[in-house]
Amino acid sequence: MNDWSALVAQKQDDLLAQLFAWLRIPSISADPVYNQDTLYAAEWLQGTLLKAGVDRCELWPSKGHPVMFAEKIIDPSLPTLLVYGHYDVQPPDPLDLWTTPAFEPQIRDGKIYARGSCDDKGQTFLHVAAFALLQEKGALPCNLKFLIEGEEEIGSAHLGEVIADYKKQLSCDAIVISDTSMLGTDKPSLTVALRGLAYLEVTVKGFNRDLHSGVYGGAVDNPINALCGMIARLKDENGHITIPGFYDKVVVHDDASRATLNNRPSDDKSYAAEIGAKQVYGEKDFTTIERIGIRPCLDVNGIWGGYTGAGAKTVLPAEAHAKISMRLVPYQDYHQVTQLITDYLHKICPPTMQLTVNPHHGGEPVLTNVNGKAYGAAVTAFKTVWGKEPIPSYEGASIPIAALLRRELSPELVFLGFGLDSDAIHSPNEHFRVDHFTKGLETVIQFYQEFGKK
Amino acid sequence: MNDWSALVAQKQDDLLAQLFAWLRIPSISADPVYNQDTLYAAEWLQGTLLKAGVDRCELWPSKGHPVMFAEKIIDPSLPTLLVYGHYDVQPPDPLDLWTTPAFEPQIRDGKIYARGSCDDKGQTFLHVAAFALLQEKGALPCNLKFLIEGEEEIGSAHLGEVIADYKKQLSCDAIVISDTSMLGTDKPSLTVALRGLAYLEVTVKGFNRDLHSGVYGGAVDNPINALCGMIARLKDENGHITIPGFYDKVVVHDDASRATLNNRPSDDKSYAAEIGAKQVYGEKDFTTIERIGIRPCLDVNGIWGGYTGAGAKTVLPAEAHAKISMRLVPYQDYHQVTQLITDYLHKICPPTMQLTVNPHHGGEPVLTNVNGKAYGAAVTAFKTVWGKEPIPSYEGASIPIAALLRRELSPELVFLGFGLDSDAIHSPNEHFRVDHFTKGLETVIQFYQEFGKK
Repeated sequence: MNDWSALVAQKQDDLLAQLFAWLRIPSISADPVYNQDTLYAAEWLQGTLLKAGVDRCELWPSKGHPVMFAEKIIDPSLPTLLVYGHYDVQPPDPLDLWTTPAFEPQIRDGKIYARGSCDDKGQTFLHVAAFALLQEKGALPCNLKFLIEGEEEIGSAHLGEVIADYKKQLSCDAIVISDTSMLGTDKPSLTVALRGLAYLEVTVKGFNRDLHSGVYGGAVDNPINALCGMIARLKDENGHITIPGFYDKVVVHDDASRATLNNRPSDDKSYAAEIGAKQVYGEKDFTTIERIGIRPCLDVNGIWGGYTGAGAKTVLPAEAHAKISMRLVPYQDYHQVTQLITDYLHKICPPTMQLTVNPHHGGEPVLTNVNGKAYGAAVTAFKTVWGKEPIPSYEGASIPIAALLRRELSPELVFLGFGLDSDAIHSPNEHFRVDHFTKGLETVIQFYQEFGKK
Repeated sequence: MNDWSALVAQKQDDLLAQLFAWLRIPSISADPVYNQDTLYAAEWLQGTLLKAGVDRCELWPSKGHPVMFAEKIIDPSLPTLLVYGHYDVQPPDPLDLWTTPAFEPQIRDGKIYARGSCDDKGQTFLHVAAFALLQEKGALPCNLKFLIEGEEEIGSAHLGEVIADYKKQLSCDAIVISDTSMLGTDKPSLTVALRGLAYLEVTVKGFNRDLHSGVYGGAVDNPINALCGMIARLKDENGHITIPGFYDKVVVHDDASRATLNNRPSDDKSYAAEIGAKQVYGEKDFTTIERIGIRPCLDVNGIWGGYTGAGAKTVLPAEAHAKISMRLVPYQDYHQVTQLITDYLHKICPPTMQLTVNPHHGGEPVLTNVNGKAYGAAVTAFKTVWGKEPIPSYEGASIPIAALLRRELSPELVFLGFGLDSDAIHSPNEHFRVDHFTKGLETVIQFYQEFGKK
């Protein structure tokens, strides 16, 4: 146990008490009823960082919830790290499934239960605490900037404008985000890629009103049947997406890269059993790890049309609708992919139907620079604290803002995440392990120190 | 103008006043709030028939609304006709779309506006009035029985049991139902066939909970995609249903029969334009008239699964659902067809999914005996009153109870309908033309007279 480990153990109760105060503030960005609380969560963070000794700390206005910015420049010749996180949380519904109230944090079985305990107040606070401890000891090894927003859970709609307005103040050498998971508590990992997202809503319209299925059935095409036929044509029997040009920009991994990627524990049977699936399924000739990490996919997220109540109603619906999304991998472009699928849907839409395609917001895929200094510092920090080389992890999910940060502020982007997939983020009984809190804090301190080395 | 025509004209105001009294009773069988009114509508009819001179008139109890039975046996050696109709009506919702209230009948532009004016109080009343006039003149040419139920609009769930219990009292030589439409006010027609119905609800389940589409997308099959793929395989590119054995019992019409069937006005362009469709569509090598009248069809009546609210949600839903129905033609059996599609769905369900198929109630197709005495009497009656040979019409819709009546009571079944497709039955502003009311009444009187001839 090194000095930092001992210090973290000594300060643990005090730090958790601070975090709990923050967790008690219901900063639900999606619900205007909680606008004042959401602002209060930003102000709480501002006060905590000022007390810990930042040079300045500001709330930047946006068209939505404000963005909190703070910085500590100890020496302009030292490298500067920008910490991105968010102070807003998901709504806690359904409330009755929580064992203890979402905004009354409690430790049970070595876990902190509260909305935001993992996503993302708990993980953001690791950086606040690391700064406070290093600053207290006069040992801060690099310059630090904090960019903590309040709209991550509602799509970060205004962060792009704020970054454009304050680009100079946000200059940095690398970005660190603690908002992801490890593969397991004994499987430390570093996320090296996140998938992007393209999302669209499709409507096929057949008639000017719902029709009686007896009077008209057989003489006209049916919007639901037509939509199902179109959806069925988006993938072939090998699970391969059939949209022309869809795979053109997808990175092809060589055998060595794939072997490295697959060199980690993975069990399809227990993976399927855990979610109650009969078996895994995906693109032919790829493993489950590859299907999630390095291959794009296409899924219908919602479908509706006609009569959906109890019993039978004999109707030919005027319209049918579907929400369709695709997870993208480097170097697919979501605007281009959205255009490709829109063109293809128009091509395969039967001449009987009127088709409307409405794109929702998307996000670019992200790939971290595993040869950069920040990534190397993260590997060393993990080895020091967790005793193991972290596994590079290609994650299937998306953090749309990550691509923006990397493009606008620095190509060096590290995901230093300490959550677990079982932490129930976005669900009732969200939690964060106390040992991940303490080891996470030690890892952040080690990471700052490695990053600050000249 | 013959004597009956003159008598109908003379009595018209009085008869309409009687019908209006019946229409004012909101006998909405679907809503228990109206149970007393529904009973009152049956009692009103009972009183009216007793006053007109039936031998006896009873309300037969059922597990739901009672069945009204009445009879007038003038001579056991004369043929006996059974009139089927219903005294219940559809709910009037949405109320705000009615120009005048649903249960305050009013004549505007030569049409009777009220819920039930056409379906089916107005048409049932033609038989009540015909009996009353003939009885008054001592001219009833045949024995008459009335079987008027109160649950037609909610599926006639208990009529089968009542018919079984009272089969002897219901014995007859032919059945007449006035609950259908003519092709047009200048296109008198006689419905000679109705399609049957098989209806089922399908659920495919992939997981024990909704999954995050980023974390799991690509590694597991998606219930919506799977369901769409199954639905797409139910028909081929020629609009032909692919369920093995589905067409085995379908009557094949020869060229002469098809020529007769198609020998009536039909215009695909105006047909499509009226419903806002880009074009008609159906089974290859058949006309629109044939697709509706003599060919079975398959339609999805409802589909749902996943996120269907505003905006985007990245979910892989645990389940997806569809309601699927088939219209059947002679001599398809709905139990057998339900089994065929159930087997086929299980066969084409991907191994990743759990499939559940729940059949709803169905109905057999009906074909009238166009060589029978009752049909011949109807043709003569139409020619006499409307001045034209009625067109034999193969209708696409279903009257599930018709097959039961024919099987249990008499193979001679005639649909003597005077509605129009534009009468808005089941919709706001339901109406019935006054001239169809008077000519319909004359036709019923002529029909009775022809049927009573030895």
